[in-house]
This record gives sequence, C-alpha cells and structure tokens, in this order.
Amino acid sequence: MAKILDAVREPADLRTLRPDELSRLAMEVRALILETVARNGGHLASNLGAVELTLALHLAFDSPRDKIVWDVGHQCYTHKILTGRRDRFAGLRRWGGLLGFPCREESEHDVFNTGHASTALSAALGLAVARDRAGEGHHVVAVVGDGSLTGGVALEALNQIGHLRERLIIVLNFNEMSISINVGAWSKYFSYLVSGQRYIQIKDQAKSFLRRVPLGRAVIKAGRALEELAKKMLFPGLVFKELGIRYIGPVHGHNIQSLVEAFEAAKSHDGPVLIQCVTQKGRGYPPARLRPEKFHGAGPFQVTTGEPLSKDWGPSYSSVFGQAMIEIARREPKVLAVTAAMGEGTGLREFSERLPDRFFDVGIAEQHAVTFAAGLAVAGLKPVVAIYSTFLQRAYDQVYHDVCLMGLPVVFVLDRAGIVPDDGPTHQGINDIAFLRTMPNMVLMAPKDEGELRHMLWSALAYGRPAAVRFPKAKGLGVPLDAPLEVLPLGRSELVREGTDLIFAVGHMVRPAVETAEALAREGLSFAVVNARFVKPLDRDAILRFAGPGRTVVTLEEGVVEGGAGSAVRELLDREGRFGIRFLSLGLPVGPYALGKAEEIRAALGLDVPGLVRRIKAFRGTPFGGGDEGQGG
Amino acid sequence: MAKILDAVREPADLRTLRPDELSRLAMEVRALILETVARNGGHLASNLGAVELTLALHLAFDSPRDKIVWDVGHQCYTHKILTGRRDRFAGLRRWGGLLGFPCREESEHDVFNTGHASTALSAALGLAVARDRAGEGHHVVAVVGDGSLTGGVALEALNQIGHLRERLIIVLNFNEMSISINVGAWSKYFSYLVSGQRYIQIKDQAKSFLRRVPLGRAVIKAGRALEELAKKMLFPGLVFKELGIRYIGPVHGHNIQSLVEAFEAAKSHDGPVLIQCVTQKGRGYPPARLRPEKFHGAGPFQVTTGEPLSKDWGPSYSSVFGQAMIEIARREPKVLAVTAAMGEGTGLREFSERLPDRFFDVGIAEQHAVTFAAGLAVAGLKPVVAIYSTFLQRAYDQVYHDVCLMGLPVVFVLDRAGIVPDDGPTHQGINDIAFLRTMPNMVLMAPKDEGELRHMLWSALAYGRPAAVRFPKAKGLGVPLDAPLEVLPLGRSELVREGTDLIFAVGHMVRPAVETAEALAREGLSFAVVNARFVKPLDRDAILRFAGPGRTVVTLEEGVVEGGAGSAVRELLDREGRFGIRFLSLGLPVGPYALGKAEEIRAALGLDVPGLVRRIKAFRGTPFGGGDEGQGG
Repeated sequence: MAKILDAVREPADLRTLRPDELSRLAMEVRALILETVARNGGHLASNLGAVELTLALHLAFDSPRDKIVWDVGHQCYTHKILTGRRDRFAGLRRWGGLLGFPCREESEHDVFNTGHASTALSAALGLAVARDRAGEGHHVVAVVGDGSLTGGVALEALNQIGHLRERLIIVLNFNEMSISINVGAWSKYFSYLVSGQRYIQIKDQAKSFLRRVPLGRAVIKAGRALEELAKKMLFPGLVFKELGIRYIGPVHGHNIQSLVEAFEAAKSHDGPVLIQCVTQKGRGYPPARLRPEKFHGAGPFQVTTGEPLSKDWGPSYSSVFGQAMIEIARREPKVLAVTAAMGEGTGLREFSERLPDRFFDVGIAEQHAVTFAAGLAVAGLKPVVAIYSTFLQRAYDQVYHDVCLMGLPVVFVLDRAGIVPDDGPTHQGINDIAFLRTMPNMVLMAPKDEGELRHMLWSALAYGRPAAVRFPKAKGLGVPLDAPLEVLPLGRSELVREGTDLIFAVGHMVRPAVETAEALAREGLSFAVVNARFVKPLDRDAILRFAGPGRTVVTLEEGVVEGGAGSAVRELLDREGRFGIRFLSLGLPVGPYALGKAEEIRAALGLDVPGLVRRIKAFRGTPFGGGDEGQGG
Repeated sequence: MAKILDAVREPADLRTLRPDELSRLAMEVRALILETVARNGGHLASNLGAVELTLALHLAFDSPRDKIVWDVGHQCYTHKILTGRRDRFAGLRRWGGLLGFPCREESEHDVFNTGHASTALSAALGLAVARDRAGEGHHVVAVVGDGSLTGGVALEALNQIGHLRERLIIVLNFNEMSISINVGAWSKYFSYLVSGQRYIQIKDQAKSFLRRVPLGRAVIKAGRALEELAKKMLFPGLVFKELGIRYIGPVHGHNIQSLVEAFEAAKSHDGPVLIQCVTQKGRGYPPARLRPEKFHGAGPFQVTTGEPLSKDWGPSYSSVFGQAMIEIARREPKVLAVTAAMGEGTGLREFSERLPDRFFDVGIAEQHAVTFAAGLAVAGLKPVVAIYSTFLQRAYDQVYHDVCLMGLPVVFVLDRAGIVPDDGPTHQGINDIAFLRTMPNMVLMAPKDEGELRHMLWSALAYGRPAAVRFPKAKGLGVPLDAPLEVLPLGRSELVREGTDLIFAVGHMVRPAVETAEALAREGLSFAVVNARFVKPLDRDAILRFAGPGRTVVTLEEGVVEGGAGSAVRELLDREGRFGIRFLSLGLPVGPYALGKAEEIRAALGLDVPGLVRRIKAFRGTPFGGGDEGQGG
C-alpha cells in the first residue's frame, strides 16, 4: 500500500488529507521515527508523544510564514519529516546528516536553534514583538514541554509575556515528565489542571457550600471557609490568567481534530494564549511508554524488545560515578546528591532509589540547583551537584557568586564534558575548563579513566572547598573499580610515561596521549606523558621539570584552546620566565561543531592518535620562530 | 540626649526596649544610614526602606541561631548596625571597611554572601533542608525584595520550596521598585495583593453574587460567571498557596509591632510561609522617597538637597553610551534597547523617555533579556542589550546557546567592566573577556575612551553578528564626542605610540599604558603602545610586527589574566611559532577582591602607572629563562 507520507513534501500537503488519512499518516510517521531511532539512537519517547501535536500545528499554522519555535527541540522529528526532510531522515544524528534538534541551516521551517531547555518563550516573544513592530500578521507559536517551565529563563519570559500582552501562542505539551521525573510545585499545579477530578471536586464543593451557608451571612461568616473555597474553585489556568495569559485546555494531545480546533481558537485571540495539550511520552511504542526516561535519549536498540543493541560496553563514566556516589554516601552521611532533571543521565537513578532522602532533583533548574547546594554547604552538608558540562553554563553565575566567592565546599560533577556524540553543537561540553579556571577557590579535576574518577570524587569531598570533576560521555577503559578510595594530593599530577619532552594531558586524553607518545617514540621522538589530574591548581613542579631550554611542551585537552588547560600551563611557564621552550596547545575550537560520533569529530579535528602524531611531528619540524635568531635584552 | 543606639551592641538588646524606644531607635538608625551614605555613597533608598523591617526581624528571630538570608543584600545596613558593627559603620564601602553587602567574614550574623539578586530563596531552602536533616529547631528566614522575584533562580527556587514544604519563612519586602521601575506580570500580581481595593472588591462581589444567584442552580448555571468570580475572589497569595506556600499579609512594613506579630505567626507554621511587607523606598528622606532610582546606588551627596557632591566629573561611559543610543536609534529604526532592571545604571533613562516604544526593561531577568533579544534579531531587528559585566554572568548560557551558536546580531553592552569601586567582590566585572572569548562568532571590543565607545557601538551594529563592547564604571577622559560615527575595521587595532617592544593594552588601560611607556622611555626603555580595540578577533599583523626575536610583549587588561586578552595574544604568538619572545600578561587576579575605590584596588594590585612601570622594569631585568641557555631541536 502506498504511503501517505510519500505524498507529503511540505506542510501544505497535509491540508489535502482526510481525517482517516491523517490518522494513518500519524502511524506512518511514528513507525519511521521508531525505526530510525532504533537504528541511529535519538530522543524517542518525546518524539513519539508529539506526532499528532505536530501534525495539528502544521494543519492550523502556515509555516514558515507562521513561526513555530520548539523548546529544547527533542520533539521536532515529526516537524522535520513534514517539512521536506523525510528523505534525509535516515541520516538523523549521523555524520553529515540531520541534527536531532531544530537547525536554521537545515530549513526555513526551523526558526530558532536549541538543545537546552526553556528558551522558546523568550525567543518567541522577541519574534512577536518584532512582528508587531513591522505590522505583519503572522502567528508566533512556542511549543514548550511542562518540564521546561521549571527553568528560570522560561519563568522570566512568562513574566514579560504577561506584561507586554503581545499576540503569542504558547502550546504547552504536558506529558508529566520532562527528562527525569518532573518535580516541583509548578508541575503539581499543571497536574491539577488536567486531573479532571479537580474540576468535578470544585463544582461539588461549591454546590454544597452554597447550599449550606445562610445567604445573608455568607461572606461575613465564611472567613477561612470562603478563602478555602476560592482556593478550590480555582479553574484551570488561573495562574496564567493572573499573569495576563489566556488559558485554553486541557486538550487531548493525540486527537488531531481537537488540537486543530484549539489552535484555531487561539489564533483569534489578540494577546498571549496558552493551550495545554496532554500527551503521552512514548505513545505507540510500549517499551518507551512504560520507561520513558530510558527512551529519552536512547542508543540503538532492538525494536521488538526495546533492549539496547550494544551490550558489550563496559561501565560508562556516568554509571561508575553513580556507583561511587552510593559507596561514598554510605561512608559519609553528610553527602547528598543534587541534580537538575538529569538523575538518569548522570547515573544517579540507583542512588535515588537506594537513598531517596539524600537525592534532590530540582527539575530543569540548574541555577537553583547550585545555589540550593550552596545553602546546604553553608549548613555543613556535602552536596554533590551532577550536571552535564553544557548545562552547567546555565549556572555560571551561581557557581561563581554563590559558591566560589565564598569558597563553599560544593562538589560539581560534570558529565558529558568534552566532545559529545550525536547531539550536535548545543551539547558539546567544551567550555567548562575555560570558565571554571576563572572561579576563585575552585579545584578542577579530570580523571584519566573511570577508576580515577572514584578517587577524584572522594578527594573533591575531602578538600573542603569548591571542586569540580569533569569526564566524557563514554564508556570507561575497563580498569578495576575496587581499589580503596584515596584522597589525591591536591594539585599533584601523575607521571604516566617518561621522556625528554612533555605531553601534558587532561582527563580522558591521557590514553591517546600515551598512544601518541608511543608512536612518536617509534619515530625517534621522546615524549613523556603527564596525567594532569588537576587543571587547577596546576602541578607547577611537574611542568617546570620539562620546561628547560629548548624543550617542547604539548598540552592536550578536550576543551576549547581559548583559555583552557593549555592556556593555564602557558601562563605558568610565562610567570616562571620559562620563555625558551616550544609550546603547542592541542584542544578544541570554539565552533562550529559537526554532527557525528565522538571518534568522527575527533578525527576531523585531528585529535585522534594519528592526527596527534601528525601534528606534533609537524610542530617539532618547524623552526623556533623569532627566538632562533637570537635573544634581545 | 543619649542615643538608644548606644545601648544596642547585639540584637538581644532590642528586646529590652519599649515600643517608643524602638521608634526612636529606628530614627537614629535612619539618621546614621543617611549621614554615612551621604558621605561614603551607597544604597540609600532600599536601606531606608528596611529599617523597621530589620528591627522587627531581630526582635522576632534569634540571630545567629536563626538564619537570616538577605537577598541582593543592598538592604542590610540596619542589620549590620544592629549586629555589632555600628562602630565600623563609618567605614562603609571604604578601603578596609565594611562591605555594603552581607559578608560572612565580617559577622556570624551574615549567613550568605550576595550582591546579585534572587539567590536568597535557594540558599535558604538549602539551610532549611540541612536543619531538618540535623533535627535542629531554628528558623530560616529569606528576606527578598519584590524585584528579585522576577529573577529566574528565585522562581526556580519557589518551585522546589512548594514541593519540599520545608519549614521556611520568606519575608517579601514589597516596595514597588527593585532598581529600575519594576515591570512584568509578577509585579502586577503583587501589586494586586496589596491594593486593598482588591480585597474589598472581592468581598463585595462575592456578597452580591451570593445574594443574586438562586441557591440550587448556582453552580450549574453560573458557568463563565462563576469562573470570573473565582478569578475575582482570588485572595491574597493564592498563587503562593497553589505553589504550597502559606501567605500572610499584606503587613505594614514600617510598623514594628505589626511586623513582629506577623513574624511570630509565621514561626508557628510547619511549612513554607511568605509574609508580604509593604515598605517605602527612601522612607524618611524625601529626596530618596521621590526619586528612589537615583538613590539606589548613590555617590556622596549633600544631605540638605540630595544633590551629588562632585559635579565636576565629565560624562561617564554610561551616559555617553546612553546618548549614543539615542543618536544611533534616530538614524537606524531597527535599533532597540533591552535591559534587565538597569535602565538607570546603564545610562538608558533618557532613551527610555524619548523612545519608550524602543526600550525594553525585562526586570531582573538577564537570561530572558538575552534570549528575547535573540528572538528580535532573528526577526531582523537590531537589539542592544545593556547589562553590567558581572550580571551578564547570569546569562552565560543564553549568550552562548541562543545568540553565538546561531551567530545572531545581538549587541551586548557591558557596563561596569573591570574593577568596580565601592561594591566589593560580587560586583567586579572581571570575567567577561575570558568567557566571551570562548563564544563562537563573537566580536569583543573595548574602547580606549568614551569617544571610541560611540564608534564601537555603531560598529557593533554594523558587523551583523554577535558583538560586545565593554567599558568601566568611570567617567570618561573628556574627549570630544561630536565626531561622525564610523565603522571601525573589524579586528584592526590602533597604534597609539611607536616603540621597540610592545604594550598591547585593552580598553581603558590604553591611557595608563601610554603613561607607563612614557615613564619607561625616560628610563631608556622603548615601548610601543597598541590600543587593542578588538580582543576578538585579534589584530594578528599588528601583534606579529612586535614579535621578532628577543622582543618583549606586554599585555594589559582589566580582566582576569586566566584566559583573558593576554592569553589570546599568547595563543596567537604560539600558533605563529613566535617562541623567541619575552611575554608578560598584566591583568587581574580571580580574587579575592578588596573593597575600595578603583584607584585603591588598582594600586594594591600594581595596576596603576607606578606599579606598571615597576613591574615591567623588573620583568625586563630578569633573564630569558630556559631559552637563554640555548635552543633545542
């Protein structure tokens, strides 16, 4: 049977379809997403949940004239399929292929790039203000998950949206879960709105109240009761109304007709309007429906069972961190775990189950996570804040102002540091070294393998000051994990390999550094390898040992070169007056980043072993530069 | 007459005073604050508004056993005076004196340091959780201005506070204005709560409704009317109640007895409770009462008139920026101004009055300000986002993820960059160069004087990509401001003075660099001075001209050395293989920062002209280091 999808080249084609054809199309889209994500990995649960929602959006709105802004963007697969990218969809998340997030470079239907949560409301308000200034008539639609509304920037935006009252359509995709289990009072409030029960309960209580209270004295006597009534009479969306935003809903988020009707109603409102749509994550695929958090960002899996394809992997850094947290928390009762909707991703799920009263998931709210931890630390507890490197950028100021300026003992665990596979530019964990280096009192570490990670976590808790441990999204090297935990000497590196010149390597780049040194040795070049362990404070003596006249110092890190660990080593050498050396800083560019596997990106950047060998050899072959010709006074 | 204040050495002494004595004490404290701020400068309006509130806090709570966490901290003067620091109060904001913000190093009564807004709720929740885990019984009190509740981190915190339901007391100091005029829907909502009218209106409408509607059919028929009623019946604090937070108020914020009663009531509540206190900024001093925004952070002034003492200053960088914005906006209709509650401080007040429809103050919400501007830019407008350097840290991720990754033409104007006088560690604008350097597509500029600032603003708008202009909190050099606006060649520096070796100076350090070069010339050392103009992209050719064998390159910037402009120059030299030079990077340490005037801090850090001369001479006198003894292969 011919696929309906074959006939959809652009959104306008949807409007030629009958309702039954739209339903079939939804099934076809769902099957395509499932098949593709099972092969390529990707965000499954959220995308399966947004199929009908997206069809309805493209039926009701005229993209790209109307602007659809996706929050986070991990529900945009259907949108990509419907906007001329079906043929490229097989290349989703692959080298040279389609990004799994909105991408302006791919299509004029992608209005605003994203990958971090909670930004759509702000961007959409900007678009709406600009539209009205230009006297244009199109619609601006922000599609936001309920989880994103815990993020500070979204709440800031709601404030101004209610104030300016621009014509703006907010589609709240309520699916009861953002990435981890969604927590917090806002979430409860939204749950209230869709409970139905609540609506009935309100009517019943209002009735019985009105029957019970003598008419004339109702208000005078009601006092507290009336206040309670007012509270319970709260109709859906009252908070939004108080903020100046009209509320429509709840709408069945898998009923295309209902959705289109709601969107059409919203189009005629002259001001901000919020439509709450209730959807199911993983809709149509039981394994994802039952364990949506497992299928948030999944690797390739068997469609029939939902089981991951690659079972031969060793433990990931994340899982080793999670296990170490359990081990440490049992020894040290003051240790707590704090995360921002990333309990699963950071490996803390088992911790959260075994030690639930010592686990705090604050929702998508990195800023609050950090300052909350600062409060815990002031009171003598030992919080460990686990956040992806790229998301910690959200809390730059809190790390600086609320932790480091006071020197509080908060431990930051930065998962997904360095090159991040498959997710593209928005998820690279490349800036952390550069920005944490400027934080006073900070200790910054990176383990060479998953075994060292355990000791670094233990050490970070022992130093009694702000400390961060960064590691990649990768499996470990398979080293033993049963060594007794030890406190590493602060600021002391590890000589991994002897040699004449130096490769000073940070974290998971130690292993490629050793392989590079071995390859260089076969060509007659002698390089020692030092495992930095600490980017801050640096091991001065270990570096200066190699900073004699005419020596070569190479630094190697998976972070931006600008201001990174190499820069720290260079500053040290300059401060010590060691000008007579050759210095090469190898790391990452600030961007742009290609999409692909970590190995593919590394190879393209010359950061794999062959690339490193080639670059270091070439460097050694160049003249000394200005210094060769003599020294001035 | 003896002062009551003489008898108050610690908060417990307050409890021995009669009500009339407390009133007199409030007057004395107010007089002391007024006199001190008139002499030293400081945050006047907010502190005058919080005198009774603070007295009541220390009457009702037992600090330091009970923990009082001040948000922003610019209302803590009374607290400092009452907690044993009266004698040191004359040294407020002065070298070696009292910080104008809470400071753990000063007193055990200062629980959490701050200077940036909106952090108290998160920190207080951490303290409350820790208290309950330890089974302790003390109170945790967060004192928050209404303006701070527009900040994302505070809204994130409210969410978890409502969720966890820890015993926590929030004192909302509602004074109708944070720093600029407070805007946004939240603000309106809080205004509602205190309008009084609203309370009466609610009661009346409820009465008439109950009288009017036939009893049995009340609910069935009411429909929309009931919904409207529910909306209007909204009692104070319903939003908070929905979030799980009990509401008490509004309370007269200058009536000590009412405040104490409200606080006592809050103490017995087993969960989070919010007390809304209504105060007046500038209370008791008419000039501040009438123009609170002028007396937010004021310089020394004449008490009798409220007029600033130093009238001989030239225009500040801020005011030149504000004037340039008006000039440019009139020529270029797409230019808009966006600020985050800093319209006054960034010099945009006149712009906001003359071009109100092109001015957007989003409240204390830096994250939203940036992403909102990104949305404007996507739609083809040219937003200029004016934020203090230190506060832009709040929006690190938005600058990176929502502007720079997409290369959107948003212009950032960073006021208060470099050393910031009088406000201490939390306000130093020292990290911006280091962190903006790692942002892809960014153009980063710093003007050597206020005249160049005009051209840089014009240029930033012309480049069509993310661009930032940073300048200090200072008056300009008094240069002419009437030159036709010109677009500076991108990445081109300016040779200010010829010489053999190089001082590469950034922004307002160009002038001290020239004076330093002149002084060095008198001692026989020849230094050129280059005005960097651009930290990113760097002027490669201009730098390499001075990077010959044996040359000395000195970089000079008012920003952290770690990863700063000097680091950028060093990376360039290394990339170009110019190893044979002597390199000295002069800039700022990451901290800690002393309190004082900019000149005092500069002198202490050796960044004034005598210090620079001394350091550069000493540097030139040291041997070349490893390189002197020969070059290796």
